[in-house]
Amino acid sequence: MKENLQRLRKAAPNLKATDMPGTPFERDKNGPRVESETELIQTYLVPLAEGMPGAFGLRDDAAVIPHAPGIDLVFSSDPIIAGVHFFPDDRPADIARKALACNVSDMAAKGAEPLAYLLTLALPEAPERAWIADFAKGLRAAQTEFGCKLIGGDTDRTPGPLSIGITIIGSVPSGAFVPRHGSKAGDHVFITGTIGDAALGLALRREPSLFKDRLSESDREFLLDRYLRPRPRSALAAAVRTHARAALDISDGLVKDLTRLAGPLGLALKFDVIPLSSSVRAALAADPKVQDAILAGGGDYELLIAVSPEKAEKFLASAAKTGIAVRDVGVLDAGTHVAVLDSRGNRIEPRHPGYDHFLR
Amino acid sequence: MKENLQRLRKAAPNLKATDMPGTPFERDKNGPRVESETELIQTYLVPLAEGMPGAFGLRDDAAVIPHAPGIDLVFSSDPIIAGVHFFPDDRPADIARKALACNVSDMAAKGAEPLAYLLTLALPEAPERAWIADFAKGLRAAQTEFGCKLIGGDTDRTPGPLSIGITIIGSVPSGAFVPRHGSKAGDHVFITGTIGDAALGLALRREPSLFKDRLSESDREFLLDRYLRPRPRSALAAAVRTHARAALDISDGLVKDLTRLAGPLGLALKFDVIPLSSSVRAALAADPKVQDAILAGGGDYELLIAVSPEKAEKFLASAAKTGIAVRDVGVLDAGTHVAVLDSRGNRIEPRHPGYDHFLR
Repeated sequence: MKENLQRLRKAAPNLKATDMPGTPFERDKNGPRVESETELIQTYLVPLAEGMPGAFGLRDDAAVIPHAPGIDLVFSSDPIIAGVHFFPDDRPADIARKALACNVSDMAAKGAEPLAYLLTLALPEAPERAWIADFAKGLRAAQTEFGCKLIGGDTDRTPGPLSIGITIIGSVPSGAFVPRHGSKAGDHVFITGTIGDAALGLALRREPSLFKDRLSESDREFLLDRYLRPRPRSALAAAVRTHARAALDISDGLVKDLTRLAGPLGLALKFDVIPLSSSVRAALAADPKVQDAILAGGGDYELLIAVSPEKAEKFLASAAKTGIAVRDVGVLDAGTHVAVLDSRGNRIEPRHPGYDHFLR
Repeated sequence: MKENLQRLRKAAPNLKATDMPGTPFERDKNGPRVESETELIQTYLVPLAEGMPGAFGLRDDAAVIPHAPGIDLVFSSDPIIAGVHFFPDDRPADIARKALACNVSDMAAKGAEPLAYLLTLALPEAPERAWIADFAKGLRAAQTEFGCKLIGGDTDRTPGPLSIGITIIGSVPSGAFVPRHGSKAGDHVFITGTIGDAALGLALRREPSLFKDRLSESDREFLLDRYLRPRPRSALAAAVRTHARAALDISDGLVKDLTRLAGPLGLALKFDVIPLSSSVRAALAADPKVQDAILAGGGDYELLIAVSPEKAEKFLASAAKTGIAVRDVGVLDAGTHVAVLDSRGNRIEPRHPGYDHFLR
């Protein structure tokens, strides 16, 4: 179960938090609306279930996945809520992508291939046809990219904000599930991609003028894109299940999730070895507080992977074939905690320990 | 996919709808609160996953269900939202029961045995310890009664109302899934239990003085209990998968769901043959409008089951062993619609066609 931090609010904790009230359906208040639940499901959702016999064209109350020899099924359930995980006026296609991506990312970390998903849509009012059409289009593009299909779910009207709940079902060869825990002293820790982009992207989404003089237009677009249109590391799933001892995706901040991966072990993480994009480097040069967003931010959908020393080389070779960058950031030791060290070897104390919804 | 009507608001459409704002956590504002997400999960939720190896003690981002020969897995996902499906100040144990029951009911209708579930909790604030303890207690009692365990999920804080999302995973012998569609002319239609109780229970929950002079205290308690503490017909799952051609649970109103079961076929339903509790009969005698709650109300968690004439007797014998009352309410014919007839054979036009969230 994921302690799913209000990760976007937290992502850049040094930046001003803004409330994000309102409805997603404010672009064209007089535009045509969906006229019934039947229209909503038949017109926009049923096409997403095509080719999935166990979905029964979304005409049933439940879906079925037939037994397949040699396969274990893997499950994860992560909702996203307007004002918590996305902005109500984000592009509908991007909202749909994010809803699926955060679940697909969990599958990648477990070495699982996405197979199908259930969707629960809680809408504050009848959506504009243009809105739901773009949402469905984004969901179709995402499910095609991630290799899964809609098999069921539910639609509701809610007095609260737009919420999109997805439960994803993935598959692994029997016994190949990669747990979060179980890494051992001596294991190498790998990080995919780059860290901190989405946290800065969120900051820019809130305050477009941020780092106005320090980041180029293309930097800004890159960071915003990383925040708005996550790319879970699905292509790495096979390498993870073949070679990793333990893995998880980074959702509650690098240090907090590294601490989870390390479990009872320790890791000395040099700040300089954390993979950063040139855009984040530019921002960091302008404002040292960006360090917090790197250490405690989320939303990049990158993976933390522990691999035994014997398998490290093979893992790197497998990863190289996917085109996803992975960086060896250190070796787990018999210590008891994760320490972040600056270039002089002094310990950096993250000012934010990582997020917890209900921490008092 | 279920067109999951705002079923409780709709249940008694002739009764005044009330808004149900506010927070569930208003009983003892100064009572101790949960202090962290870790406490919430470790103290209250982890015990619900005991004995389920694939849940990893809720310490992972995903859960696994190993391959089992001869078994198909069945999925359904139904959230409940405060102010839509329950009252914020309902007893926490009852809210938990309802969240699981509405999903278990879908399993029963498909002939499936509940196996496991994922839980996504979106809480408007840190809950009182007393509240979450009672919620977890109710969930434990419900999962024990229904025969399933928690395997994963997610916790979030939300700017909206308390929402509880459950995705249930059930199992059937390979190929035994019972669809909603596929009944044939000549099939007998069976209804379990009694109809309309929950709709009146909801009305009483809103206006305790309703039918003050016509219903006894025990009638009122029975109806309220039917609304607040649903009993899905799990015990009937084996009889359903063995003998039924098609089935669904009644969620959007008797007539609407009968129409779904009938598909392109017809059914002449005599109002007098609809199974009613003595409490509903008493209310109906006091106010003919109760008829609407019977024909269009939901929340009873009863099943509609189509059985071929050859299997009808065996189905009845199997059902009898469970102690759940089932009533043969008619035979599907080559007609094209479901007609409700009064005792003189005249057609009753339901004033409410059944609910649709977005019908304009």
